[in-house]
Amino acid sequence: MPATEFPISLNDVRAAARALNGTVVRTPLLENADVNASLGGRLLIKAECAQRTGAFKIRGAYWRILNMTAEERALGAITYSSGNHALGVSQAARILGSTALIVMPDDAPAAKMAAVRSLGAEIATFDRDRENYDDVVERLRQETGRVHVPPSAHPQVLSGAGTVALEIFEQAEALGARIDAVLTPCGGGGLTASTAIVARETSPGTQVYAVEPELFDDTRRSLLAGQRVPNPIGLRTICDAIMTPIPNTVTFPINQALLAGGLTASDADVAAAMRFAFEHYKIVVEPGAAVGIAAVLNGQIDISGRTVATVVTGGNVDLDRFCSLTHQITS
Amino acid sequence: MPATEFPISLNDVRAAARALNGTVVRTPLLENADVNASLGGRLLIKAECAQRTGAFKIRGAYWRILNMTAEERALGAITYSSGNHALGVSQAARILGSTALIVMPDDAPAAKMAAVRSLGAEIATFDRDRENYDDVVERLRQETGRVHVPPSAHPQVLSGAGTVALEIFEQAEALGARIDAVLTPCGGGGLTASTAIVARETSPGTQVYAVEPELFDDTRRSLLAGQRVPNPIGLRTICDAIMTPIPNTVTFPINQALLAGGLTASDADVAAAMRFAFEHYKIVVEPGAAVGIAAVLNGQIDISGRTVATVVTGGNVDLDRFCSLTHQITS
Repeated sequence: MPATEFPISLNDVRAAARALNGTVVRTPLLENADVNASLGGRLLIKAECAQRTGAFKIRGAYWRILNMTAEERALGAITYSSGNHALGVSQAARILGSTALIVMPDDAPAAKMAAVRSLGAEIATFDRDRENYDDVVERLRQETGRVHVPPSAHPQVLSGAGTVALEIFEQAEALGARIDAVLTPCGGGGLTASTAIVARETSPGTQVYAVEPELFDDTRRSLLAGQRVPNPIGLRTICDAIMTPIPNTVTFPINQALLAGGLTASDADVAAAMRFAFEHYKIVVEPGAAVGIAAVLNGQIDISGRTVATVVTGGNVDLDRFCSLTHQITS
Repeated sequence: MPATEFPISLNDVRAAARALNGTVVRTPLLENADVNASLGGRLLIKAECAQRTGAFKIRGAYWRILNMTAEERALGAITYSSGNHALGVSQAARILGSTALIVMPDDAPAAKMAAVRSLGAEIATFDRDRENYDDVVERLRQETGRVHVPPSAHPQVLSGAGTVALEIFEQAEALGARIDAVLTPCGGGGLTASTAIVARETSPGTQVYAVEPELFDDTRRSLLAGQRVPNPIGLRTICDAIMTPIPNTVTFPINQALLAGGLTASDADVAAAMRFAFEHYKIVVEPGAAVGIAAVLNGQIDISGRTVATVVTGGNVDLDRFCSLTHQITS
């Protein structure tokens, strides 16, 4: 795909950054000099766990809703998600005086439904044995006139997500660091694609990698195959935030054109990375957000003598589950 | 105490800040707009858990050791501590090409001894039934010629600690916030005293409070009594980092002259605050570092319509203990 055909450019990301300023948090880029010394390289951690709603997703949702017409905002947003994207859309809609309708399976955890409702959003449930979520969203979109805010496959959502990378490069420069590689947790591939677009123009020497759960490495395998290939059915991972069936048609062509490759982490690697982040950076990292750290610790990326940045995409993990996951792996 | 008689001035803190720049971390000042909305005020959290060695103590230790003569640095540092100050002194000595001897009771936890040794420091143990730590430090100081680096009662240690407050006021200004009150966890009182000195000159309208565990509120009661009064013997708290017997003679006169007062938090309040910080700020807060957040949540300080900052002084709590403490209180 020639660069001119990418759905967004660096300028689009910069426009989103200006609009998000003051509403979303410019999250810290953390490092630990003593960990760096033991790794023999420099590890920079973009802590989007400290973002509003606990994840980076609000960036894309806010920019998408802000770009709606007044009439569209009055009709409101609709999306499918039981996780961070649901929280981001709900909160962004509330901030912007719009409303959100979140489609969730009727067996979604009560705590997740309560979190979405606490942000003022409505929930529409469906029976996953009878319908698929795309059909439900499309049916309700037509019934209500609400505007779809997909989790990654939309230019404005991508531009919002790209502001994470913009901040990383600015903050790294302030730390006197030149980033050799950025590791992005990869589900739908939006954060990965937008990071690659930003890196390409602001830091051309920087490699961008997609990092996925070992059993959900559809992007890595698709990059190798040269076409979109799905994950096998019926597998599980603790990385619920990035369990996607197949790369989507908006983000994959960008990733195919720009990425250095794909890396993976097992669930055990991820739990160890969550513990590592707790102990050395004192941050709470949800499983799907820990794959980048995990790929450094499991040796899939060489950090020796280099500077590697990774995005901790969110920190939305129940304390009980956090304690249980981090103990399973080490005790 | 007239201001001219304070052991340090704002200029001393500024000098320390210049020297610490590039070695210690300028830790983030976190806030959560959604928590603020529910509190009806603005809560700013200075995350010193993200500091090197996981606590603010390295700031004072580094500045003290940097101010030694070359001969003194060759002889090395000595101090008593089984916690954050030991880590700070050990790491600062290592960075500066000096050495540290840490005095610890012979029943100190093996993990704490291992952490200190991993930073290259030596440990001297003693039997707490036969000697007190002051006598041991003094005996070993005379035997070895090492220079004492106390945890708070020294001007350079105070100046180093004061850099936390300097950053808070600078970072708050960047956020467009005027701070009405700063809540400092208070053990020996060094962070509290140095914060009060910085606030007095850079933000005169800001009140500074000492926050202590409910059963170890020696500073609060001493402020009320107008003289140093000890804590009762034999009590316990989960806030091990700030369990001090009585205010010391260096910091108490400063605190007496400058503080707005003392606040307290029960162990249950502290555990709830640790959970709150995990859930809403995604940070790891050790018990003694959570008392400021606890004093907001338990209503001892009014945040309504105001901006309140607190220092999370450290995040050095074992994952096992963290999970156990935060679950006791809520399940």
